[in-house]
Amino acid sequence: KELSLAPAATMFDRAKMEDLLKRRFFIDQSFAIYGGITGQYDFGPMGCALKANLLHAWRSFFVLEEQMLEVDCSVLTPEPVLKASGHVDRFADLMVKDIGTGECFRLDHLIKAHLEKVALDKKTSEATKEECKDIVVKLDGMKKEEMSQILQKFNIRSPLTGNELTEPIEFNLMFGTQIGPSGLVKGFLRPETAQGIFVNFKRLLEFNQGRLPFAAAQIGNAFRNEISPRSGLIRVREFTMAEIEHFCDPSNKNHPKFDSVRTTPVLLYSACNQMDGKSASLTTIGEAVDSNLIANQTLGYFMARIQLFLIRIGVDEKKLRFRQHMSNEMAHYACDCWDAELLTSYGWIECVGCADRSAFDLTQHTKATGVRLAAEKKLAEPKIVNITEPVPNKAAIGKAFKKEAKGIMEVLSAMDPVTVGQLEEDLASKGEHTVSLNGADYTLTKDMVMVQTHQKTVHVEEIIPSVIEPSFGIGRIMYALFEHNFKMREGDEQRTFFSLPPVVAPLKCSVLPLSGNPEFQPFVKKLSQELTRCDVSHKVDDSSGSIGRRYARTDEIAIPFGITIDFDSLKAPNSATLRERDTMGQVRISLDELPDVVRNLSFGKTTWAEVEEKYPKFEQQETTKAA
Amino acid sequence: KELSLAPAATMFDRAKMEDLLKRRFFIDQSFAIYGGITGQYDFGPMGCALKANLLHAWRSFFVLEEQMLEVDCSVLTPEPVLKASGHVDRFADLMVKDIGTGECFRLDHLIKAHLEKVALDKKTSEATKEECKDIVVKLDGMKKEEMSQILQKFNIRSPLTGNELTEPIEFNLMFGTQIGPSGLVKGFLRPETAQGIFVNFKRLLEFNQGRLPFAAAQIGNAFRNEISPRSGLIRVREFTMAEIEHFCDPSNKNHPKFDSVRTTPVLLYSACNQMDGKSASLTTIGEAVDSNLIANQTLGYFMARIQLFLIRIGVDEKKLRFRQHMSNEMAHYACDCWDAELLTSYGWIECVGCADRSAFDLTQHTKATGVRLAAEKKLAEPKIVNITEPVPNKAAIGKAFKKEAKGIMEVLSAMDPVTVGQLEEDLASKGEHTVSLNGADYTLTKDMVMVQTHQKTVHVEEIIPSVIEPSFGIGRIMYALFEHNFKMREGDEQRTFFSLPPVVAPLKCSVLPLSGNPEFQPFVKKLSQELTRCDVSHKVDDSSGSIGRRYARTDEIAIPFGITIDFDSLKAPNSATLRERDTMGQVRISLDELPDVVRNLSFGKTTWAEVEEKYPKFEQQETTKAA
Repeated sequence: KELSLAPAATMFDRAKMEDLLKRRFFIDQSFAIYGGITGQYDFGPMGCALKANLLHAWRSFFVLEEQMLEVDCSVLTPEPVLKASGHVDRFADLMVKDIGTGECFRLDHLIKAHLEKVALDKKTSEATKEECKDIVVKLDGMKKEEMSQILQKFNIRSPLTGNELTEPIEFNLMFGTQIGPSGLVKGFLRPETAQGIFVNFKRLLEFNQGRLPFAAAQIGNAFRNEISPRSGLIRVREFTMAEIEHFCDPSNKNHPKFDSVRTTPVLLYSACNQMDGKSASLTTIGEAVDSNLIANQTLGYFMARIQLFLIRIGVDEKKLRFRQHMSNEMAHYACDCWDAELLTSYGWIECVGCADRSAFDLTQHTKATGVRLAAEKKLAEPKIVNITEPVPNKAAIGKAFKKEAKGIMEVLSAMDPVTVGQLEEDLASKGEHTVSLNGADYTLTKDMVMVQTHQKTVHVEEIIPSVIEPSFGIGRIMYALFEHNFKMREGDEQRTFFSLPPVVAPLKCSVLPLSGNPEFQPFVKKLSQELTRCDVSHKVDDSSGSIGRRYARTDEIAIPFGITIDFDSLKAPNSATLRERDTMGQVRISLDELPDVVRNLSFGKTTWAEVEEKYPKFEQQETTKAA
Repeated sequence: KELSLAPAATMFDRAKMEDLLKRRFFIDQSFAIYGGITGQYDFGPMGCALKANLLHAWRSFFVLEEQMLEVDCSVLTPEPVLKASGHVDRFADLMVKDIGTGECFRLDHLIKAHLEKVALDKKTSEATKEECKDIVVKLDGMKKEEMSQILQKFNIRSPLTGNELTEPIEFNLMFGTQIGPSGLVKGFLRPETAQGIFVNFKRLLEFNQGRLPFAAAQIGNAFRNEISPRSGLIRVREFTMAEIEHFCDPSNKNHPKFDSVRTTPVLLYSACNQMDGKSASLTTIGEAVDSNLIANQTLGYFMARIQLFLIRIGVDEKKLRFRQHMSNEMAHYACDCWDAELLTSYGWIECVGCADRSAFDLTQHTKATGVRLAAEKKLAEPKIVNITEPVPNKAAIGKAFKKEAKGIMEVLSAMDPVTVGQLEEDLASKGEHTVSLNGADYTLTKDMVMVQTHQKTVHVEEIIPSVIEPSFGIGRIMYALFEHNFKMREGDEQRTFFSLPPVVAPLKCSVLPLSGNPEFQPFVKKLSQELTRCDVSHKVDDSSGSIGRRYARTDEIAIPFGITIDFDSLKAPNSATLRERDTMGQVRISLDELPDVVRNLSFGKTTWAEVEEKYPKFEQQETTKAA
């Protein structure tokens, strides 16, 4: 029922688009000449340029504009880091195996596909149909036992062989490897880039001169060993992410720039509406935060910024919504989470996650390492506190423990309050207390240490910051961009093209000499040099074929602007035709002015409408027939 | 003796530089709070920005200017691909283990360190010293047995424990993992990005409309499980590479733009000179190619371009040379190879490899997959050739093999000349011939197929292109950039800074209000917005401290230009001070003009000398004392 809110996408011809993506090498399966591996794709020249432009736009929109601290961390991650983050124990999907062939299936996908089939079957009762739909909506949050019951209840078998299936098994999605030649240091390919930021928290806080809030950002690859990736570009085993970790005071998650986005309209699909079988509703970010539907201003601010960014790079705003995670579906680290979902022919796809990870990660890494990942917050007014701490007798400890004395002193000074209480109790009851250092035990007696309480005026308190995390799946966003911008010319279904905005289009401009006449060459060469000087990526197409046919070829690779050098270009005032891809409108501009005009169009400093207003229209029928 | 050609670098204070790199978080060890893993580093905000700028410059200089086809391929690579490329069998280093502790040592590094120590020992005879030096020079090309003999001859033991060592063992440097949940599909993290390009050769050739030469390029991470990485940033386990694969006709490796680089002076350290104990010599690229010291024009063209690029981004040209690989040292795929080496406190370090990989890789992948990775070359004039091929009797084959018939016909039409010869012989001698299809054998008799020879006029011939590969180690280049640009202010050794050129500097500009006076704020804010609009990355430093002290802080992070807003900025004509990092020169410019001036300086469209000429000088002593 959620789909009813969305514009009809059923007519979308995915095969036709995929053909274009392959044919012009935007993207294709990796290692295809070796048979390929599912869930791996290579970006060809056009896909690679689109990706680079998208990332450049992301960096300007988020990192530059918000002065974020960008980092670039290691992919190979030692096991203890991912043990602390919870990934070793909990980053798993449930799978079942065909007991005959051993083929593996991801359990939730298998159930979903089966129940959707059952629900479509005419013989199925209305009550069962409703039950199926209800399960599908709630599947994301289900536990192993519940899914196991559904398997049995609906007698689900292997869709390939009809064989029975094993009980659900948890399969960890991280790729493991060994670091170093000993084979003893276990590591994983990172499943997200976020942990690299968390383990660098102290350095980043220091770089920011100790001040909160601040945001760090990272663009990089992450890896997940998907069980049976089948949805083309949507579910892959390695992918580029762009993640932001915004660190702030847990007691104040307001955002100074919230008012600038307050009136942004957003389509929200709340957890309640999902549970109640209702649909998404349109509201504003301001209302949603005021009513506590969105947990805080910072989360809301980023949701609005995410939406603005997606629309700027070419996402169809009518195919964008935010879906809230249900409480039983939330990742192990999150306390509120909204996914920006984009509607594609695969349905609504999570493309950007926006989660409040609270203090989960910093707390976990602090526990695991003993390094306090905390910030200091200035108190509104100084306060007097009682400090209870061990006071060592240096001479006695030094005499007793010789060269270990220094280490023992450090243990004492780093002792947490609970242990200090234990020390005090031990000294009072037994007259001694034992501490550990480098695996050995040392017994301290009353003459070596005592516990004292004194008053101290403190001006700051230590807080573990909360983290708001917008996390972008770059490949999924690219896929949605392809679908949202795939077009056919009216009346000519063979002329397909991508209407990508200039800011992300792989190449900004084509330069087409009208024919192979050598007189055109010097003009083409000079124009190409000028465009390079202006940082306008472009393609000279001097192949044969009519201008119309060559425009069609450049439309296919989403080039927004085309310059044609013709016989009028050769004589004063040396003008050329500039043509825009989506409208196919053409104007006449002098060669001197052209590079700057195209530059301004390419980087969004001027619009095509403005150019059409300023320069004389050029009228000529486009034909794809050969010249 | 090679070091004697280089300027004295012995006085270089590496510890001081590394302190700055860590303190201002250009770069630091990964996962340090977990104890870290050797050979892994994270880039902090300044390192990350430097890296992004360096890669942007690389893309402009190579991809954009030479219209290369950039791709972005998978990191996880299935085993058969790396089996074919030779990496599974040959991408190994020799190591020895301490028989007591099991500690692993990379053999060549161990021998080198030991012999260098022996050579420095006063008790060592002159003859032995010479022998040691000679071995060190030739070590890179030595085989396992030779190294084993050296171990014995010099009685080399573990430098840590003095224990005996095992015999040399080959250790493959690739990180292995399993792809998918079955555990049966073995894969590796790619050890270079090149293979991703080779396996996409057909798609890229097609994208280039079948024409040679063309170049493909890729920027991405690669992984090598180094045995015992000890040289800081120089030897790491994961690193970013930027690789170019230039595909050309093997019979014509001339380059159309060679004349544009012919007179470029280069310092060449040829294989002969290395073997003969001579030093590097200065020549021009033109002379080196003419005398066949460099194998061909394309190799020479890229060497010159590599040098130009390195100098442009800030490498000290006096610390740059090209060293030729000795024949026994060459990688398994190369037929000539020159490394661009940069002189650092670690000695001469290979930073860019420039190899002629000939047709090795395309041939290997063709053999492994049966997919012909070849190009068509138009013949100067058509020629008539004899074609011997199987002529199937479709009806007979169809009748005999039913639904396998189509596959068998395909086997026949794809048959290579040697097999056709065998088929002809078999039919003549035995009256039948057996072919394989999908693991099953099928026997073809005389009535099903015959072999015929006929004449054909051909206009093209099939060639397997040669590959010239410039391969950039981005991390090593960055490290050399740090060393080459680390400076101290005359008379103040504590004021260290990096003189990185604006094109790669992490941030281009700082904005410093003279004091905390609130009147400065609107001017600072407006300037910051204007700079953002001009794509000038910048940092507002409104912390307390004298302007001089804040300049010192921005110098440390290599910011080339600083704008100070002072009381004169508040009144007409509203000017501010613009200060340049290296010269510490200052000029006075109106606020309106500033953003464009800084933009042009940042992107190399104007020089500081030109700015100093045009605008009035501003004289004020810099002091690092607090205001």
